[in-house]
Amino acid sequence: MNDARQPAERETQPHAYAPVQDLTSLITALRETAAERDRAGGHAAREKQWIADAGLLTLAVPHEFGGAFGGASGGLDGAHWYDVYQTIRAIATVDSALAHLLGFQCLQIVSVDVWGNAEQRARYLNGTVREQWWWGNAVNPLDTRLVATATTDGGYRLHGAKGFCSGTRGSQMMTVSGHDAAAGKSVYGVVPTTREGITVHDDWDPIGQRQTDSGTVSFDNVRLEPHEVMHRSDVPRVTLRTLVSQLVLTNLFVGIAQGALDEARRYFTQYTRPWITSGVARAADDPYQLQRFGEMRLKTIGAEAMADRAARALDDAWNKGFALDAQQRAHVALATSEAKVFAHRAALDVSEALFDACGARATGAPLALDRFWRNARVHTLHDPLDYRVRDIGRYALEGTLPDVSLYT
Amino acid sequence: MNDARQPAERETQPHAYAPVQDLTSLITALRETAAERDRAGGHAAREKQWIADAGLLTLAVPHEFGGAFGGASGGLDGAHWYDVYQTIRAIATVDSALAHLLGFQCLQIVSVDVWGNAEQRARYLNGTVREQWWWGNAVNPLDTRLVATATTDGGYRLHGAKGFCSGTRGSQMMTVSGHDAAAGKSVYGVVPTTREGITVHDDWDPIGQRQTDSGTVSFDNVRLEPHEVMHRSDVPRVTLRTLVSQLVLTNLFVGIAQGALDEARRYFTQYTRPWITSGVARAADDPYQLQRFGEMRLKTIGAEAMADRAARALDDAWNKGFALDAQQRAHVALATSEAKVFAHRAALDVSEALFDACGARATGAPLALDRFWRNARVHTLHDPLDYRVRDIGRYALEGTLPDVSLYT
Amino acid sequence: MNDARQPAERETQPHAYAPVQDLTSLITALRETAAERDRAGGHAAREKQWIADAGLLTLAVPHEFGGAFGGASGGLDGAHWYDVYQTIRAIATVDSALAHLLGFQCLQIVSVDVWGNAEQRARYLNGTVREQWWWGNAVNPLDTRLVATATTDGGYRLHGAKGFCSGTRGSQMMTVSGHDAAAGKSVYGVVPTTREGITVHDDWDPIGQRQTDSGTVSFDNVRLEPHEVMHRSDVPRVTLRTLVSQLVLTNLFVGIAQGALDEARRYFTQYTRPWITSGVARAADDPYQLQRFGEMRLKTIGAEAMADRAARALDDAWNKGFALDAQQRAHVALATSEAKVFAHRAALDVSEALFDACGARATGAPLALDRFWRNARVHTLHDPLDYRVRDIGRYALEGTLPDVSLYT
Amino acid sequence: MNDARQPAERETQPHAYAPVQDLTSLITALRETAAERDRAGGHAAREKQWIADAGLLTLAVPHEFGGAFGGASGGLDGAHWYDVYQTIRAIATVDSALAHLLGFQCLQIVSVDVWGNAEQRARYLNGTVREQWWWGNAVNPLDTRLVATATTDGGYRLHGAKGFCSGTRGSQMMTVSGHDAAAGKSVYGVVPTTREGITVHDDWDPIGQRQTDSGTVSFDNVRLEPHEVMHRSDVPRVTLRTLVSQLVLTNLFVGIAQGALDEARRYFTQYTRPWITSGVARAADDPYQLQRFGEMRLKTIGAEAMADRAARALDDAWNKGFALDAQQRAHVALATSEAKVFAHRAALDVSEALFDACGARATGAPLALDRFWRNARVHTLHDPLDYRVRDIGRYALEGTLPDVSLYT
Repeated sequence: MNDARQPAERETQPHAYAPVQDLTSLITALRETAAERDRAGGHAAREKQWIADAGLLTLAVPHEFGGAFGGASGGLDGAHWYDVYQTIRAIATVDSALAHLLGFQCLQIVSVDVWGNAEQRARYLNGTVREQWWWGNAVNPLDTRLVATATTDGGYRLHGAKGFCSGTRGSQMMTVSGHDAAAGKSVYGVVPTTREGITVHDDWDPIGQRQTDSGTVSFDNVRLEPHEVMHRSDVPRVTLRTLVSQLVLTNLFVGIAQGALDEARRYFTQYTRPWITSGVARAADDPYQLQRFGEMRLKTIGAEAMADRAARALDDAWNKGFALDAQQRAHVALATSEAKVFAHRAALDVSEALFDACGARATGAPLALDRFWRNARVHTLHDPLDYRVRDIGRYALEGTLPDVSLYT
Repeated sequence: MNDARQPAERETQPHAYAPVQDLTSLITALRETAAERDRAGGHAAREKQWIADAGLLTLAVPHEFGGAFGGASGGLDGAHWYDVYQTIRAIATVDSALAHLLGFQCLQIVSVDVWGNAEQRARYLNGTVREQWWWGNAVNPLDTRLVATATTDGGYRLHGAKGFCSGTRGSQMMTVSGHDAAAGKSVYGVVPTTREGITVHDDWDPIGQRQTDSGTVSFDNVRLEPHEVMHRSDVPRVTLRTLVSQLVLTNLFVGIAQGALDEARRYFTQYTRPWITSGVARAADDPYQLQRFGEMRLKTIGAEAMADRAARALDDAWNKGFALDAQQRAHVALATSEAKVFAHRAALDVSEALFDACGARATGAPLALDRFWRNARVHTLHDPLDYRVRDIGRYALEGTLPDVSLYT
Repeated sequence: MNDARQPAERETQPHAYAPVQDLTSLITALRETAAERDRAGGHAAREKQWIADAGLLTLAVPHEFGGAFGGASGGLDGAHWYDVYQTIRAIATVDSALAHLLGFQCLQIVSVDVWGNAEQRARYLNGTVREQWWWGNAVNPLDTRLVATATTDGGYRLHGAKGFCSGTRGSQMMTVSGHDAAAGKSVYGVVPTTREGITVHDDWDPIGQRQTDSGTVSFDNVRLEPHEVMHRSDVPRVTLRTLVSQLVLTNLFVGIAQGALDEARRYFTQYTRPWITSGVARAADDPYQLQRFGEMRLKTIGAEAMADRAARALDDAWNKGFALDAQQRAHVALATSEAKVFAHRAALDVSEALFDACGARATGAPLALDRFWRNARVHTLHDPLDYRVRDIGRYALEGTLPDVSLYT
Repeated sequence: MNDARQPAERETQPHAYAPVQDLTSLITALRETAAERDRAGGHAAREKQWIADAGLLTLAVPHEFGGAFGGASGGLDGAHWYDVYQTIRAIATVDSALAHLLGFQCLQIVSVDVWGNAEQRARYLNGTVREQWWWGNAVNPLDTRLVATATTDGGYRLHGAKGFCSGTRGSQMMTVSGHDAAAGKSVYGVVPTTREGITVHDDWDPIGQRQTDSGTVSFDNVRLEPHEVMHRSDVPRVTLRTLVSQLVLTNLFVGIAQGALDEARRYFTQYTRPWITSGVARAADDPYQLQRFGEMRLKTIGAEAMADRAARALDDAWNKGFALDAQQRAHVALATSEAKVFAHRAALDVSEALFDACGARATGAPLALDRFWRNARVHTLHDPLDYRVRDIGRYALEGTLPDVSLYT
């Protein structure tokens, strides 16, 4: 049974795989300071160390490089995307900003895994296991300010900036993409975050997701060495990376909905009193409050079920390796969009309903119970839901599957 | 991938088990006359024969009695509830009244299976395989008019009436329940429908589900022989029967949603023209129509996913046999209610939106495209959604699982 | 106070004007046979006579021609559109098909009033008062099959057909429009329905609004005399006619919502029993049923309020006469679209919720309580809501008012 | 025409009365600092002075005492509640916290007007005009900690505390209520805020409505003089005060919805770019964005219309004076609850949709565009909507009007 009330247990029940012995304690610790860190914003160095200490930095590193993902026999006896997302989701129930950092850690790792050549995969993925690197990025495709100029040795000079570089502050390594105008193409690579000329700006001050460090990174004539350039292909297996990313977001939304429901339940059972004209002795017997919790749970478990369905579709596709064809990949894209719609709506609706459940006294700023809505609100604007629904409609009406794009 | 557009294929893909070679032709045949039979109402003798010919009467008869359900090794290599529901759902996409008859056939069979003793199970379940009986019933628990008077030999005399006896008209055997006021208990049994004193009334004339034959059955001092009395226990395994029944309804709703979406798609792609101020050349490129089909699909697949989740929970519980405990059973009840809410809403919403998609000309009475909404509307009133949502809220708020009741 | 429960009284309270002494009895009489006439469909000759007997045929005929509309002093002391719509709405609470016929009677009268010259207005409007004509029409602008060929005397020959000619069957006079391909323009006129060559077909068989006689009218070389040709201008005052028409539809929707709520209330208070697990002794104390009736009323009164707001805007514009400018007219168009959205949604939602309120036994076909939903569903497909919402969005976003069109 | 985009103009159009020449400049000035004051929270001394300078402190003081409300001829030629609410609403479009302060100023004034005797009305209402007092309160009925002990001279000693005392900080006068346990009744009075023993605590730190100064006020054996005691009756005219209060809240919600729509429009038209797969050149031509703005406007104008309807009902009842009977009063209560439901939902929905309209970059904390949602969220928790809907349902179902209560 899915159980919206017990995220830590839920994550470990249906699958034998359990990457972190103390995920429950990590979640408990993050929850304790989540409200105050939401208020403070800024960089969560201490909490990022906790995540590293819990062994989560290598969650998406394939088994062959020493990580937790897949297994010796080709990915069938270690963690799968399903498991990775359960972990991200569980953390998001208490802190969707730090869960986002973990999700983006996984995303940069998978980027290297699918874009890198054998030598790069070995270097960076083994290195992540050995050095416990946090990964940042400067690859936001909608920001075209970063220019890559080819050098004669096969490397590049990078100049300009990228915005929304989640997780780069405090990272050791980063993926980067720039535009090579001369060749008319995008250039992808890996650089250490400390490389000369790279400045990570402390300019991320949003209304929610306040500790994702999604600020600007500027590049002042930064060297990208030839061996750091990743020659990315666009075969279906490689473009699954976009779907890995979209399901990170989706599972953050699911976690926000679960967390909002959980906090509503905790607060309600401890503090909420029956309304004066309700005629009931206990608030928990108020028919409208029961209805509200019922609807909150329905939205939450609907989102869980759809996110799980998409994760399983991704795992099936992933396990096909380079045999994956475009249509199979497109079905995963469709399932991902479908899950994202459910999760998007659940996160917003449940985090708003939390207050109807708990009542006026729950609006004290120190409790910061609005952080669930603010986190959901910021994160659900990554790309417009409208066009996902349109894509789903195209499939429903004429069987047209989504194209490969920056978001699908 | 679930695919709302191909019900017949969908049913056979994820599982190896395929009970009926010609389910697709059955569905095609039922669809052809569905509109005209909706108008006519009454008894669908010919179409019931088609269902029998397709071998579906024994879908829920356990393998040990010659049926399709479970297998020699204890239920793991034949049909499971998941498969039974896929079949019911597939038929409901074109005719939810006849799908209801098949669902109730399965329900009476499982009633005998869990209420009957070894001899009764052998007699009635083998008999069903051998004689291809259609089963009816007179067990509506909210109708208390049927009185059972004990006779000295351990049998009863039945007198009075029951309403909403779906499927009894045209059946050969039926389950029956009456109230034994002297003993203060309900009495359950099996009688041949043709037994002297039983009259099946032709008084079912509703706005939807017009061919379910859910009329009144009256009993004029009808004999229930001692060997026909089923001494029902109330252990968890036995009360799963109520959940089998609720998931029949749930899957009818899912099928209605799928069918409404499918008919909308067919009509739209063939007939619907772009609106004069839409600025598009093809109706299928209208952004609002794509959005509508997207939302219709989202509701439909959400219901599918939740109904499948509940069916798998039922199968897990069923396979535990008499070892099933009350809490495990209650989790299935919860998942069933959750699925029913999604499916109820999907059926109503999608069948209403069908018309927004197709436009004014789709309202011609001969097309009877409103039958999806009317079928959904009648069938979703079986019990109020409000109290299912309340139950779900009780679980979300305090972890309280649903009680065993007539509906949960 | 608006009061959704007393349509007949409501209509007369806020305004001194009361056109019909016995509107209440008319409504009572129509309600008695509404269910059976819904089943039968076809032409309601007897009930149309009742409407005529109640003096309603001249509701929109200006006072100067002997009708009830406006007054000697320029429209300020007789009926106004507000009052006309209250009457249509009150009838629609029990029979939205006959209310539609009355609405279209008013619409043809206003067509003659704004399209006709002085002589035509006198002839046809005085004639309506004197002869108690029912008016039909063949002006559906989306149907381009009716060809007008000019004759040398300034008249035309009409050949072809028009669909959706509501109210033409059983009428004495009708408005007509055809396409004059040679001149590249539409031609408008008035002809007696009995004129040689006109055939009114009995081919209207929809799922709802079954007695609006909206069938096809065919023209076999029919003569349109020179004095019957109306030389329509397109000044703002004249194009208000489209908004008169749209508010007829809007008020039918409001009436359907009011009527559905009223029938739900009647049935519920008489028959509906508390649900077995509700814990209340009276169904009327069920918290979820009270919530449902609350939401039904909220939708209904929201639609009432917005329809009244639009009617007052129309009256203000109408009273400006030919001084009305395009922007003022466009504001009425906006208010009309706004009202239509509220009313459209209220009609569908309340007529569906009626069943959740009343329960399974309310689905008996003889009660035909689904007629509210079927009537709403058919009538709300006249033009797509999507494009009204888009128009409203254009105004909200950039202040752009709706263009004059066939529907706005 | 109502026009959601021009609050200042809208307020003055339909009525001749215009209390403040420079309401528009006040609103402009408040808007400029609203985001930064939302972040800072605390007491808005400067802005409260602006409101006083604009002459708004006496908006609800009857004309006979030198204020703006009503007129010499009995309330028919000055401001009415309709006008008062338009002013509050207009301010709430940019700052619902300061609009709340103004609303509560009016509420304390009406409290003195209906609870006070002739001498008290003269003293305090004339005093407000002469001294330009801001009024605070300590009357929250759900907080029972403030004890009133009778003294032999007809006065009281007040001891204890009240929470949620909006507007008391920085006020000169305040209404107060305490519980006289000996007499078993509530005691009402007026005291200067600076009276010895009164401490206004700076403990209001909520997630929204951050400058309403709704903190705790404690009383250390505070003297309530005999002439300060108000002997409140409970005739219908007097209990209208509760509805005045509820319509203050309602109009704050309407203003929040209008303001959120206005800010969305401003931001969108200036900054928002078309989505990459939208196929449109201007974001303002995106069909889904137009739909969104359409829906935002529909919610907003629905709330406006219902709030105006309730305000007119209140004015009608108010003008009846002490002749008002209980049923007439109850109809105003019903209309008030109906308006509050529409406004509550509009405020939350429009302030959430603002972000879907504007996109990710609108989530920067310095813009504080989430303040509309946070303000709405805090303020809509004053009392649960559920029980208003229940009341409305009781009326819809059985014609039962709401009882007089603390909230209705």
